[in-house]
Amino acid sequence: MKADEPARPASADLSRLSRAALDLCAELATLTEVPGQTTRTYLCPSAAQMHTRLRAWADRLGMTTRLDAVGNLRSRLEGPPGAPTLYLGSHLDTVPNAGAYDGILGVVLGYAAAEALQAGGRPLPFGIEVLAFSEEEGVRYGVSFIGSRALVGTADELLDRLDREGRSVRDAIRAFGLDETELPGALAEANALGYLEVHIEQGPVLQDAGAAVGVVSSIVGQSRLTLGFAGQAAHAGTTPMTLRRDPLAAAARFMVAAEDLARATPGLVATVGMIEARPGAGNVIPGEVSLSLDIRHEFDAVRAEALAALLDTAEREAAARGVTLAVIPRMEESATPMDAGLRAGLHEAAAGLGLAAPELVSGAGHDAQILAARMPAAMLFVRSPNALSHHPDEMVNPEDVDAALAVVVRLIENLAGGARA
Amino acid sequence: MKADEPARPASADLSRLSRAALDLCAELATLTEVPGQTTRTYLCPSAAQMHTRLRAWADRLGMTTRLDAVGNLRSRLEGPPGAPTLYLGSHLDTVPNAGAYDGILGVVLGYAAAEALQAGGRPLPFGIEVLAFSEEEGVRYGVSFIGSRALVGTADELLDRLDREGRSVRDAIRAFGLDETELPGALAEANALGYLEVHIEQGPVLQDAGAAVGVVSSIVGQSRLTLGFAGQAAHAGTTPMTLRRDPLAAAARFMVAAEDLARATPGLVATVGMIEARPGAGNVIPGEVSLSLDIRHEFDAVRAEALAALLDTAEREAAARGVTLAVIPRMEESATPMDAGLRAGLHEAAAGLGLAAPELVSGAGHDAQILAARMPAAMLFVRSPNALSHHPDEMVNPEDVDAALAVVVRLIENLAGGARA
Repeated sequence: MKADEPARPASADLSRLSRAALDLCAELATLTEVPGQTTRTYLCPSAAQMHTRLRAWADRLGMTTRLDAVGNLRSRLEGPPGAPTLYLGSHLDTVPNAGAYDGILGVVLGYAAAEALQAGGRPLPFGIEVLAFSEEEGVRYGVSFIGSRALVGTADELLDRLDREGRSVRDAIRAFGLDETELPGALAEANALGYLEVHIEQGPVLQDAGAAVGVVSSIVGQSRLTLGFAGQAAHAGTTPMTLRRDPLAAAARFMVAAEDLARATPGLVATVGMIEARPGAGNVIPGEVSLSLDIRHEFDAVRAEALAALLDTAEREAAARGVTLAVIPRMEESATPMDAGLRAGLHEAAAGLGLAAPELVSGAGHDAQILAARMPAAMLFVRSPNALSHHPDEMVNPEDVDAALAVVVRLIENLAGGARA
Repeated sequence: MKADEPARPASADLSRLSRAALDLCAELATLTEVPGQTTRTYLCPSAAQMHTRLRAWADRLGMTTRLDAVGNLRSRLEGPPGAPTLYLGSHLDTVPNAGAYDGILGVVLGYAAAEALQAGGRPLPFGIEVLAFSEEEGVRYGVSFIGSRALVGTADELLDRLDREGRSVRDAIRAFGLDETELPGALAEANALGYLEVHIEQGPVLQDAGAAVGVVSSIVGQSRLTLGFAGQAAHAGTTPMTLRRDPLAAAARFMVAAEDLARATPGLVATVGMIEARPGAGNVIPGEVSLSLDIRHEFDAVRAEALAALLDTAEREAAARGVTLAVIPRMEESATPMDAGLRAGLHEAAAGLGLAAPELVSGAGHDAQILAARMPAAMLFVRSPNALSHHPDEMVNPEDVDAALAVVVRLIENLAGGARA
């Protein structure tokens, strides 16, 4: 071994660690609020069981572990005094009736990477902190990212939000034995080295490309809206086509335009997932139609231009039929490019391991988009077989998880080598 | 007065009679199963109250009145022995929460016409029978035309049908004090002069044309179907356009094709009134879509050709997206042209009164299409203000009803003049 070559865990050791991480995913999937499912919302009782189980791994590695004010579990492998921290992690909460990997995989691989790096024997020139965020899915409070927002100083705005039982975020924090006045202590350090999140892709791109892992170039910006078309309900038999004010006919033109524009615009996705026509009888022309539009792109300008064009089409097709259009914005989020340096580092690490790691856009939101406001952030996606996610049958290929852990460890070794040089 | 000129009631008398008929409509609208609404289904208790009220008018005119085996109220003004009968009428039942004119108007104008003709003083060379059908809307048994089917010999097929409480048509007949074994006595006479039905248009065509009344050329044939598109539910953000199997995108193309084809085909109407997308969340590409198609035309061949073209489009757009299509037929009814002689008679009568009476197609089904199997049948439509029907605010213009009664009376006088000559 040359002196400037980092100490590297053998690939057999990494594979053992990644399989241990996978076994732990399976075990953690049994911790749930709903027997027979995997359902864990923000600070539910099973969250404490998750913490106990993960803390045991951290303790074994000699990491120092704490819960911050919003319930994120944070385990540190300290670096030299004054050295910056590299954050690794993802979230512990789930959608209702979830699979075993969405979120959790990135947490357990954080601990696995810490163990692999420790096994490498050579102290790192920076700290490592594994983050297990308490909330990302938005299930309990209808708002996402309570966990990661605490690290960038924007969680306090959410303290008064209520769940369906009328309990506020503040109530939930206190009921879990925490104290929301300690939120400032949850902030990430100002000069952090960065945040790296491993997450299942939850889409078909890597499977389609035949790649185990991929580097996220950007997390899409998204707009979600409800469009309401109001015309005139009328008799389907006695109303000639020329005398109709049919909102569903206008809505159909809009949906066709949305598909056409998204197909013609690289990277754009546009989805109508919800549609309702009232009164909803086969022999009555609808009087009112409402539908959802979800439109996403990695560049905000492209999304904004596409949205404007589609709303123009909706307006024009409505007006042509004597139909009125109401547009109700539901969500508007900007795109978040991932850090160029960390992306290059992930590519270099993958290349060093002989792995193809195509770049892809994340079409879903992730904690990395929150952390990116305060530090360089990057994501490594793991192939999702059949794109199945948010479902009990959610899967990963163990070999793909081996690859993800190897890339993460290699990236950190390379960062450490660079920091020492 | 010349000897060969028919005796004619003064128009002031006709107007008095048509306003009396309208007053009766308003009074009969208070007879209902549901307080505060006008709701009368087949052989409900309020049907008997309707019969009592109408029979009083018939009695005053010296008509002989009976209830037939399915509960149709039938009042005769006898003609000379062996002379044929001209039938006038419509139905007494309503949709839930109906207006005051759909059906009823044609019945009360039958009595009004009988009174006007009697007042004319000269005996008719044929009999007049006012028919008040017990069932046309199909509400109680999910099948229409129980009343008129009894006159053409096809009501017996319906005797075992059950309502929501599990009571058969036979049970309903017996509970009303009638006897279904007397169905043969309900048949219309074999050599009837014809059937004439006055009915509100329930559409916007006469209003758009500025005409009080119109002559129905044909009652449309109709096909009703359910189309089921099945694709693959997937994440709206992580699934690129090229990897989607979106059934709603296919359905939207189908709906556009239906509107385009109907607009391009004179007289064709095509309606999607019901659409459902599952799972129905804004950020999930639908996995399944079902929708209704209702397509009508006065010529069966045109409708059949249009339907085949639309199903081809649905199949093609589905296949292009990896979506499967299931087509479930729900109803198929042939078109019924109205009798050419009676149509000409209606035009002649209207012209003689200086009234515009444009021809129009009936886009809805009516008892006349049933009677047409056994005798010449025709319909006179009365303008529907704002096309409002099947609604408590359903209206008629009194002047339009004056015109309708005048046309009917003039037609019958002309028929009588022709029969005497």
